[in-house]
Amino acid sequence: MDTKKFAINLANQAGDIITKYFNAEYKVELKEHDSPVTIVDKTINQLVLDGIKKEFPGHGFIGEEGGSFNIKNEYVWVCDPLDGTIPYASGLPIIAFSLALVQKGFPILGVIHNPFADRLYIAEKGKGAFLNDKLIQVSKSNKITRELVGICVWNKSHIDFIPLVSELLKLGIDMETGSTAYLGAVVASGESVANIFPNNNPWDFAAVDIIVKEAGGKVTDIYGQEQKYDRKTKGALATNGLVHDQLIEIIQKKIK
Amino acid sequence: MDTKKFAINLANQAGDIITKYFNAEYKVELKEHDSPVTIVDKTINQLVLDGIKKEFPGHGFIGEEGGSFNIKNEYVWVCDPLDGTIPYASGLPIIAFSLALVQKGFPILGVIHNPFADRLYIAEKGKGAFLNDKLIQVSKSNKITRELVGICVWNKSHIDFIPLVSELLKLGIDMETGSTAYLGAVVASGESVANIFPNNNPWDFAAVDIIVKEAGGKVTDIYGQEQKYDRKTKGALATNGLVHDQLIEIIQKKIK
Repeated sequence: MDTKKFAINLANQAGDIITKYFNAEYKVELKEHDSPVTIVDKTINQLVLDGIKKEFPGHGFIGEEGGSFNIKNEYVWVCDPLDGTIPYASGLPIIAFSLALVQKGFPILGVIHNPFADRLYIAEKGKGAFLNDKLIQVSKSNKITRELVGICVWNKSHIDFIPLVSELLKLGIDMETGSTAYLGAVVASGESVANIFPNNNPWDFAAVDIIVKEAGGKVTDIYGQEQKYDRKTKGALATNGLVHDQLIEIIQKKIK
Repeated sequence: MDTKKFAINLANQAGDIITKYFNAEYKVELKEHDSPVTIVDKTINQLVLDGIKKEFPGHGFIGEEGGSFNIKNEYVWVCDPLDGTIPYASGLPIIAFSLALVQKGFPILGVIHNPFADRLYIAEKGKGAFLNDKLIQVSKSNKITRELVGICVWNKSHIDFIPLVSELLKLGIDMETGSTAYLGAVVASGESVANIFPNNNPWDFAAVDIIVKEAGGKVTDIYGQEQKYDRKTKGALATNGLVHDQLIEIIQKKIK
């Protein structure tokens, strides 16, 4: 199977599991560091793990829900089975399945699926970014005021993002929270100018990286540098390109 | 037709319109005060208007998209055709159709529908609150830390909510943004402990008021007082009851 078909198949299966349990009773457990994990995360994680072992035995795997293997291999799959577990467990459909294939740390394939929104984003290096088979482009806005900026306000973040949130609100942006991966996807489709991720896990942003870049946008760490996604990251910023430097400047002032 | 059936019919029709245009090309216009309004808002608003005139000619109507009439009548319908227009226009499915029937200003029937989440909330005074026909109850948590609190961070709010947002984040809450009506609905279903609305439009909270109260929660203005919804409000706070005083205290310190 080719890697793109493989990723789309998994994304669709994950979507079915995500919608199936959303309005049902399900068990929210507490895992290490108090991040809630549900049966949904675990089921999808196992699906991805098993699929990689069967179809691409030479590849590695890094996932939010554990079971990582061969993470030093040239090709590694980076997965967040259910990005936005807190919103999901709270009845809010701002979530996503996120999966990327990285080569020597750099994403070459990414898929982000939100089944509630009926949106499957996919990009391969050099081939453009697509939303439900339609080619997409980032927005052409060069301002952040009155534009939508996504931000992860997870309270277990290793970075103090509160001064940054206050500053962005003072600047008159329309801030939205929720799944980092999905808030990144809407940057690719031109509906938001930026998504800020003040956290260091690679699985939230690996697929965003390739999808936003292929849609004509820019993705760096929060210091403005390119980064690899087979290890901890230095936060992440995805923009339409035009507001990137502006945001890096604000972030540098507000995050110590 | 009885009022409950009427409200459910409208909510279902509104849901179909909301999903139909979500992934299609549609026109975002700018209306007064720079709030984006789409063809979706207008179409649903007309549907509600026409329905009331036909089925309940003695009733009044107040809606976000205009066309208000008979607002001094004993019975008035209060409607937000598409709460969360900014998220909707940005590809984020945190939205809701919200409709309430108020008697002398106090809600006696409310419906909130998010078709992406496949959730229709409904409550009538004295008859309990329901999510997709299942009786719901607010949560029994007496703390806000590590619990979800919804908040409207609309930048055209007449209240400076930035110090409040900073304080809530410092307290370690999991904050989420999006449709005020929907963030209120998940308080009723026990998935969030509170929803704060630092704004004065009645249509965002009239349906939340009756649904959360019928689920066993508490709803007041942001000063802790009961209020009417056939006029401008003094903000609004919906909680599970147990965290209400705690939040009123924090709000009073942070909102001048």
